[in-house]
Amino acid sequence: MSNPINLADKLAQFSEHWSPRIVGVFNGHDLMVVKAKGEFVWHSHPDTDDFFLVLKGRLRIELRDGDVVLGPGELHVVPKGVEHRPVAEEETELLIIEPAGTPNTGDPDTAVTKVSI
Amino acid sequence: MSNPINLADKLAQFSEHWSPRIVGVFNGHDLMVVKAKGEFVWHSHPDTDDFFLVLKGRLRIELRDGDVVLGPGELHVVPKGVEHRPVAEEETELLIIEPAGTPNTGDPDTAVTKVSI
Repeated sequence: MSNPINLADKLAQFSEHWSPRIVGVFNGHDLMVVKAKGEFVWHSHPDTDDFFLVLKGRLRIELRDGDVVLGPGELHVVPKGVEHRPVAEEETELLIIEPAGTPNTGDPDTAVTKVSI
Repeated sequence: MSNPINLADKLAQFSEHWSPRIVGVFNGHDLMVVKAKGEFVWHSHPDTDDFFLVLKGRLRIELRDGDVVLGPGELHVVPKGVEHRPVAEEETELLIIEPAGTPNTGDPDTAVTKVSI
């Protein structure tokens, strides 16, 4: 018998904001947990949609044509190429999914290195 | 301002077991919620991994080399080609992800039609 991936346990292992940790893989995508607080940068991903599922807290995804606000158990997919800026007033925990190697800022020069835990 | 996808709201819209509802799309994949109760069939997907995230309840994924038991906030990915049988003793709610058009039983002849809600 093997163990499932417990998202809360994974999130308890780090405290940095906007620094995704890889917890699994699925069809060439990284499954990641991330802690968000404050404003991220405006960015887009030319080659991939961006999946956000809020586990705890509250995330506002600012879009050029209006915002989407997510609470726990709510998800939103930003289509590829669409500019967005995630903002969390309080510390917020997320499951995000991106193709392996996708820079989190949309730009390899400013992206953080994603570590597996 | 647009609305996020609220998974609990989507799950409240139907009662059938093992009948996934499509709630969104992501990189050619369907994002689906499903209610599980009882034993599903042993099956595998030759061309895709199978993503399971438990939202409520408890899911046992039986595998030929041992089981994985998932509670709320826990996920497991069954690699492509690996035989598995999901079993839920109590009614269990899941987020699952599969490429659009994947038969839920691994076999188009026995698969249910996935409806968008």
